[in-house]
Amino acid sequence: MIEPRTLKGFRDHLPAQALARERILDVARRVYRSYGFAPIDTPALEYLEILTGKGGAETDKQLYRFTDHGGRDVGMRFDLTVPFARFCAQHIASLGTPFKRYHMASVWRGENTQRGRYREFMQCDFDTIGTTSPVADLETVLVVHDLLTAIGIGRFTIRINDRRVLGGVLSGLGLASRATEVLRSLDKLGKSAPDAVGAELSAHGVPDEAVAKLLGMARLSGPPHEVLAALEVLVSESAGGREGLAALRGLLAGAEAAGVAAGRIVVDPSIARGLDYYTGIVLESFLDDLPALGSICSGGRYDDLAGLYTKQPLPGVGASLGIDRLLAGLEELGKLETVETPAEVFLVFFDESHLPDYLRIAAALRAGGMAVEFFPEPKRVGQQLKVAAKRGFPSALVIGSDEFASGTAQFKNLATQASTTIDWHGDLHVLVDAVHSLLVSR
Amino acid sequence: MIEPRTLKGFRDHLPAQALARERILDVARRVYRSYGFAPIDTPALEYLEILTGKGGAETDKQLYRFTDHGGRDVGMRFDLTVPFARFCAQHIASLGTPFKRYHMASVWRGENTQRGRYREFMQCDFDTIGTTSPVADLETVLVVHDLLTAIGIGRFTIRINDRRVLGGVLSGLGLASRATEVLRSLDKLGKSAPDAVGAELSAHGVPDEAVAKLLGMARLSGPPHEVLAALEVLVSESAGGREGLAALRGLLAGAEAAGVAAGRIVVDPSIARGLDYYTGIVLESFLDDLPALGSICSGGRYDDLAGLYTKQPLPGVGASLGIDRLLAGLEELGKLETVETPAEVFLVFFDESHLPDYLRIAAALRAGGMAVEFFPEPKRVGQQLKVAAKRGFPSALVIGSDEFASGTAQFKNLATQASTTIDWHGDLHVLVDAVHSLLVSR
Repeated sequence: MIEPRTLKGFRDHLPAQALARERILDVARRVYRSYGFAPIDTPALEYLEILTGKGGAETDKQLYRFTDHGGRDVGMRFDLTVPFARFCAQHIASLGTPFKRYHMASVWRGENTQRGRYREFMQCDFDTIGTTSPVADLETVLVVHDLLTAIGIGRFTIRINDRRVLGGVLSGLGLASRATEVLRSLDKLGKSAPDAVGAELSAHGVPDEAVAKLLGMARLSGPPHEVLAALEVLVSESAGGREGLAALRGLLAGAEAAGVAAGRIVVDPSIARGLDYYTGIVLESFLDDLPALGSICSGGRYDDLAGLYTKQPLPGVGASLGIDRLLAGLEELGKLETVETPAEVFLVFFDESHLPDYLRIAAALRAGGMAVEFFPEPKRVGQQLKVAAKRGFPSALVIGSDEFASGTAQFKNLATQASTTIDWHGDLHVLVDAVHSLLVSR
Repeated sequence: MIEPRTLKGFRDHLPAQALARERILDVARRVYRSYGFAPIDTPALEYLEILTGKGGAETDKQLYRFTDHGGRDVGMRFDLTVPFARFCAQHIASLGTPFKRYHMASVWRGENTQRGRYREFMQCDFDTIGTTSPVADLETVLVVHDLLTAIGIGRFTIRINDRRVLGGVLSGLGLASRATEVLRSLDKLGKSAPDAVGAELSAHGVPDEAVAKLLGMARLSGPPHEVLAALEVLVSESAGGREGLAALRGLLAGAEAAGVAAGRIVVDPSIARGLDYYTGIVLESFLDDLPALGSICSGGRYDDLAGLYTKQPLPGVGASLGIDRLLAGLEELGKLETVETPAEVFLVFFDESHLPDYLRIAAALRAGGMAVEFFPEPKRVGQQLKVAAKRGFPSALVIGSDEFASGTAQFKNLATQASTTIDWHGDLHVLVDAVHSLLVSR
């Protein structure tokens, strides 16, 4: 006998979790598509040389890698960005630009599981490649907005910033040459206390006065126009800084035109994003009721996606939904449904001699757009209803020989235990319409 | 510069292919759910001992296997059945039976790519576990029927048989002890000529007379009741054979009650399914216009799913949609759409000063349920429309400063090149309704 178990850091998704995840993926797919993003997919395995050296030493160490049957060194993808860069270098000539794609798939990292991280998780990325238009930046923010709205997550805030603004501020402080370390440290704000970040900046050799100014900048908050005015002073004469501020103003105006409610998007100068490759807008988004969860959807603009694989410059902008973090957040907020079934109606198998009638009824309900589970064995009704209740079916339909004789049916609302008699006189259309109405009005 | 390339036997899915695949997956998800099947997911990686020895020597050889960072021997799943068996052994006590799940995910096999096979492909399985009820068998057939109908694949035929019938026939011929080899050989009918299969049976030591009877049985075709009558003679006194025939009769009656058109399901005694573990009904399904493609959805009943991992007997029944084969078939039949975009409306960016208006219009169309791609750069209209046509957008909406001034819009049907003027007088509701009607009526 082999012990049935999963690998450390890996997990099964049981129906309740899988249903919740499918719902979010459906919403993401619908929103991405509503802006014209098209799906793509890439292999789970890539040549090792494609994957190594793109995400830093830590990522390389975490790579699942091996030699395949043909003696090739291969690795499992650790994100969707590196494969997308390779994909674009290979296919962009035939696809044409601007190219908008989404990609929702699993990635693998041999991470330390003590931090509560999994070694297999899903990413849901969308990107617009081959254009530097600010409209593409704006659409990125709008997609994040529509996505978080459609998920029904409660109040959220999208925090935007621009790397050029940060660059301008750093220039003004004479720190341009140390931008990478400084931005990495600033990016820890939110997770680490300002004092700790300040100490780290000092350790990088940032003068005390500059540390104070940087932390002061990161603390700026309030209505966007006030934050922008304060930043205007800080970026001073920097041309890049002024471009960044103009871009942020354009984003806010565009979002207003597209109908985004005031306050949903704020300018937050502390948003830096740790990754080196961002060059323009950057964004993060947080649940207002659970800010400590961290950003659930983040991204930004980059100058060149695929410089390691092609000489063609491929600027782009995009973001990624952290679906596992989002699901954890929804669970913590009690907003995660825990039903174990996708079906709305549990049809009790009451009287074996009526099997053909049950089959006709189930087929008619399905043709009417309802999902129906017909219990496969004529067990005791109470036993069947217990299964239905445990799995979270919203309703059960009980039709025994008496009901068939009188042309009736019992519709049970399993949440309230209320029972309604349907008079359908043997007419399937009447039954289907009645069940549909009762489901809608429940 | 690193050469951007995929591994041999692996491929990228570009938007046209990915859209076609997503459409089929959506349909499968909807149909599986309509019968109460719930989604699950399992890790791509499993302990090697879970995977080896379940699919035979050939499968073991093809396994992608390696030692992970923690020194564990691991493998990538080569199908969804073995992980599901492990999953059930682990979780069935908490999930309860009957348990109905679907699982749609990639699997990996280091196969010889010369046969036109890929080393990464998708499986879409559904199974009902923990019941021996013939209703579960019937539902399996009904799901396959509803699935192939919903995909809109043209005419198809579901071919059913029962392993017990085959067993009864083999018993009658004194071949019960050699059932495995005989069934493996019979399963090649359809791919191999009857003579070749006959020669193989002879090589297994099957007497000539029995070979003739077996090939005669496999040739039986026509209306189900005639085939069943002929099989009745062949199974003779075999109790199992008679049970199998009764099961097939029940399936046909149930399918009729559920509204399946006559002729869609036929009894085909040549269907054996090569896998040893089937013990009851077996089914395959074929496109009538492309039978040489092979079965696109196959399955059957098995006595015990997870005997290697648990002592609890877990009988079940299920089937698997071969989505890659189906897509190849749809392509060959010219039934595969080749659009590269999920969006219905291409909104031309005509006049930069009207950016806020375009954003409002795009938002209103999306709120009206339409997917809209707004071109991010105010390039020449002709250039934008060329992109739209190349990507297969059904329509484009052109609104320049003249149109804004007069409260009109040009709706272009990109398939017919017909242009319609919409008078919307600056009222977004009017515009949204007009575009919606034009899309529906196109």
